[in-house]
Amino acid sequence: MTERTRRAPTGAALLQPHITSAITDSVLHELAARGYGRLSMEAVAKRAGVSKSALYRRWPSKQDMVIAVLSEFSVAQAEVSDTGSLRGDLLATLRAVRDWVTHPRFATILPDLVAEATRNPTLAGAIAATIGEPRRALGAVPLRRAIDRGELPADLDLELALDLVAAPVYWRLTVRQAPAPPDYLDRLADHIVRALRG
Amino acid sequence: MTERTRRAPTGAALLQPHITSAITDSVLHELAARGYGRLSMEAVAKRAGVSKSALYRRWPSKQDMVIAVLSEFSVAQAEVSDTGSLRGDLLATLRAVRDWVTHPRFATILPDLVAEATRNPTLAGAIAATIGEPRRALGAVPLRRAIDRGELPADLDLELALDLVAAPVYWRLTVRQAPAPPDYLDRLADHIVRALRG
Repeated sequence: MTERTRRAPTGAALLQPHITSAITDSVLHELAARGYGRLSMEAVAKRAGVSKSALYRRWPSKQDMVIAVLSEFSVAQAEVSDTGSLRGDLLATLRAVRDWVTHPRFATILPDLVAEATRNPTLAGAIAATIGEPRRALGAVPLRRAIDRGELPADLDLELALDLVAAPVYWRLTVRQAPAPPDYLDRLADHIVRALRG
Repeated sequence: MTERTRRAPTGAALLQPHITSAITDSVLHELAARGYGRLSMEAVAKRAGVSKSALYRRWPSKQDMVIAVLSEFSVAQAEVSDTGSLRGDLLATLRAVRDWVTHPRFATILPDLVAEATRNPTLAGAIAATIGEPRRALGAVPLRRAIDRGELPADLDLELALDLVAAPVYWRLTVRQAPAPPDYLDRLADHIVRALRG
């Protein structure tokens, strides 16, 4: 069973979905090809077949545009599984994190954005507010359900638990660029269940 | 108690330690300021007060130079603690990882290098071979001691255990740029002990 959490795009984007889709595709392409630092509104507009003013009508700045597109990709399209067990939900979450960080374009975009954010605190704050925190809120849902079922202690260290779930997948697949054997996520789920049960 | 594992530099570097030190400092400065992609041998030489040929006498390429300097910083200077207990050793390792990823220059250098490596498989391979794998070998030492003492099962999933130790610190401090409360590493050590005990 899977609940799909979707948030509607706002304003102009709602009116012309095919243009929004062309812009989204263009932003993702340019981010993956050039990185955030060298991405230009001009190049995004050209590839999307729209004018620069069409971009500025939607977003006041490059940062707002990138954040909106990546938040749609990373949060609005994220799924929260409800398999009925902590282990099942953890495994579904780990698979979703894997798919997110290994997405053909996003696998390049995310580490570039992390590097950029170490030099740009405003960007770092925007990423945390519009991608990091909303994803953590989604990640907390199955953990809270496990507390309600009595599978996890009521005083679960939720802050740390959310780090434990996302971190090893990113570390292995993105930072180390090491392969994950077919049963890696299963074994990881077993370890995390033990860590969290207290 | 702390064993300090040091590896001697080789060749020319051994003969002129003050020059090596100036070059190392220059490489770290340029990496942090400009990133790997825009680092030039010219700028490194100028800041170190040496000729470009002095660099090429030591290393055949920019990649070799960067890898040598970062490997010295990340591996040769790494410590392996022996506190007598798994939890104590894990906490010491977690603190060392924290100090490594939050080092004023390295905090910018490492994410930049990760981003660069997603576009450059040769660089990714060199980083894994000269930094990633040697650090994992050091990280395995206290885990093997814990197996010998009977604190961890003999069939410990060492590959996964090493991911679990390094990943959350990098995820929280570097990727999320979130603060770590004073007791964060203690709580993380407790979680990892439970995860690994099986």
